[in-house]
Amino acid sequence: MSTITPAQNLEINPRIKAVFDDIRATRKSDFINNLWHYLAFDIELLEDTWREVKVVMAKPSHLDPLTKELIYAAVSIANSCEYCIHSHTAAARSKGMSDKQYAEFLSIVSLAGRTNHLLNGLKVPIDKEFNHENS
Amino acid sequence: MSTITPAQNLEINPRIKAVFDDIRATRKSDFINNLWHYLAFDIELLEDTWREVKVVMAKPSHLDPLTKELIYAAVSIANSCEYCIHSHTAAARSKGMSDKQYAEFLSIVSLAGRTNHLLNGLKVPIDKEFNHENS
Amino acid sequence: MSTITPAQNLEINPRIKAVFDDIRATRKSDFINNLWHYLAFDIELLEDTWREVKVVMAKPSHLDPLTKELIYAAVSIANSCEYCIHSHTAAARSKGMSDKQYAEFLSIVSLAGRTNHLLNGLKVPIDKEFNHENS
Amino acid sequence: MSTITPAQNLEINPRIKAVFDDIRATRKSDFINNLWHYLAFDIELLEDTWREVKVVMAKPSHLDPLTKELIYAAVSIANSCEYCIHSHTAAARSKGMSDKQYAEFLSIVSLAGRTNHLLNGLKVPIDKEFNHENS
Amino acid sequence: MSTITPAQNLEINPRIKAVFDDIRATRKSDFINNLWHYLAFDIELLEDTWREVKVVMAKPSHLDPLTKELIYAAVSIANSCEYCIHSHTAAARSKGMSDKQYAEFLSIVSLAGRTNHLLNGLKVPIDKEFNHENS
Amino acid sequence: MSTITPAQNLEINPRIKAVFDDIRATRKSDFINNLWHYLAFDIELLEDTWREVKVVMAKPSHLDPLTKELIYAAVSIANSCEYCIHSHTAAARSKGMSDKQYAEFLSIVSLAGRTNHLLNGLKVPIDKEFNHENS
Repeated sequence: MSTITPAQNLEINPRIKAVFDDIRATRKSDFINNLWHYLAFDIELLEDTWREVKVVMAKPSHLDPLTKELIYAAVSIANSCEYCIHSHTAAARSKGMSDKQYAEFLSIVSLAGRTNHLLNGLKVPIDKEFNHENS
Repeated sequence: MSTITPAQNLEINPRIKAVFDDIRATRKSDFINNLWHYLAFDIELLEDTWREVKVVMAKPSHLDPLTKELIYAAVSIANSCEYCIHSHTAAARSKGMSDKQYAEFLSIVSLAGRTNHLLNGLKVPIDKEFNHENS
Repeated sequence: MSTITPAQNLEINPRIKAVFDDIRATRKSDFINNLWHYLAFDIELLEDTWREVKVVMAKPSHLDPLTKELIYAAVSIANSCEYCIHSHTAAARSKGMSDKQYAEFLSIVSLAGRTNHLLNGLKVPIDKEFNHENS
Repeated sequence: MSTITPAQNLEINPRIKAVFDDIRATRKSDFINNLWHYLAFDIELLEDTWREVKVVMAKPSHLDPLTKELIYAAVSIANSCEYCIHSHTAAARSKGMSDKQYAEFLSIVSLAGRTNHLLNGLKVPIDKEFNHENS
Repeated sequence: MSTITPAQNLEINPRIKAVFDDIRATRKSDFINNLWHYLAFDIELLEDTWREVKVVMAKPSHLDPLTKELIYAAVSIANSCEYCIHSHTAAARSKGMSDKQYAEFLSIVSLAGRTNHLLNGLKVPIDKEFNHENS
Repeated sequence: MSTITPAQNLEINPRIKAVFDDIRATRKSDFINNLWHYLAFDIELLEDTWREVKVVMAKPSHLDPLTKELIYAAVSIANSCEYCIHSHTAAARSKGMSDKQYAEFLSIVSLAGRTNHLLNGLKVPIDKEFNHENS
């Protein structure tokens, strides 16, 4: 159950069509995932969200494409966003993630979950050596 | 303020010394960060935690060292663990992270924060195309 | 799947009936949503929870009814509580929320998600100007 | 302790100055809070973040200014973002929030925290009446 | 830095004094921790919060006092509430928690953090055997 | 929908069979819940995860078995991990949790949710009396 229902034939609206065309061109794929159909109930929300995603995920980059998807998926797991977990795990696979890499990714994410809880429980003081000005 | 206070001269205890020696050898560094001093109030907690960290972070790997630290830092930010954020941001720098990469990392983490909230609010149905069995 | 199963004919129990009657009277509606049926497995949990909800949501107020539901829904999204997201989005609509307002609400919630992650990552020091004693 | 240190005399850089000038003009205030100084270590991160905040918080709106700040602060509390809690509580006060309104806001946020945990524990099924298509 | 500042001589106000007296009597201690001084900026928020805490923590109980504090502390760690972590770890100690119990508590909390992230990443289907109706 | 699909006849693999046999022996039950079938896509992830769970949950203990499950379930609720909530609520019942205890557990977890949000909103300073060195 979703909190809104997408209209039929969304691309009759030229502003929606423009966004969808740009998604297809940017991603070099005809597939438009559900997120964009649901956001289309408000044209500004659709345009703003796409612009921001495009800025971050599609511009010249200093990190490789798989690393970017793994960072995205890691945050999504910690925030318990089911849709985002599925979309970014799938995207990581499409960027070449192997089963061995996926298992190692899960090991790191869950180890972080463990030590995050341990450190938040103990409230250990932060080492001055972690200060980037000391490095 | 922490919930425990480490004893003085921890390494008088041979089991603590053994863990600390293994940390130094594994990391090829004399620096033992506060976490391990605080965990030493319970020798089993210290030994168990170190074994798990060593298993995940120090074994032969299918992801590069910087990617692993970025995944760790991403989860720590989402979980609001201040100590972990500092330790893993510092570790990422020691693995070669440039300012441009750090800025891109923050862009991805914060974009994930944005779309996680958006999708959790809308409860968009998950596309069948994300099912790995369909790929 | 839920962790408990409500009994049949809950209102045979006079204490349960008294709570349900008060919910109906307070909300001026015959509809009792599932939460209250499930809480009824323990009469004190039911009575305590209803008293607290009634105290906060039904007393004379300094915020308008729509604003109150939007605050409630915002927290529920950040905490990833699916039931609460649906119940309070529906409640916001019943208090007059338009589609334009819903889109703007989602923009703010997701922008907050973004900057929360950005600030938690950077650990920017808090401006002294934010101190209410300085204003 | 922050993960970066802002440079001195940031506004010597004309792109940084342009963003800061726009912040001052948009907010009709000379005060530039720390967030923007810290983001300036990467000009694109600064420009992108400001553009998004400006889009959401400064455009013609369907919600009143205080409601918007309260929604922002509510998410920030749930995400435990200390900087954001202080900046948006201060902003709410500057938009006219009274102590009575603040107390009521805290009551709603904390009640949501309570029922979020209760519902996530019980996994109560979502009422079909919450479906907006039924309303 | 807090978002409010408590007034001096709070107990001049008879409603505040009545709450503080009840806290002292219920806990059999003269110590009133900061929370209650800060909540006193709004008498209804103070009275409501105390009533709810008293209902849950001070009534005849089916769980032992230490278990109750450990549950409270566990949630507080997962939610990254620094004040609550300190107050409920201290309360657990005052109820007799030993260092060995504290270490075991931290092991469980952090293991839960680990498997929570692992399961949220994998989205493993829930076993029908977990359904209480099958037991 | 899960992010992986378990193979058929997992126990043909002797390392998987060894883990499953140890789970059965440790728990004195033939039931192997889904988690372990899904983790088996990577033998090291399966072995590492089981070793850690066994270390924490199955060794000589300073807390009673029900208390341990309640702590685990409390963290899982706060982290919104649906699988973990069901598995550890079921485990608590199998360790003897009554309906009255479950209701009290939910009261404490949800009260913690409430005060966690309240304290995180107010940023009340931590009492020096909470420092264990003062006790």
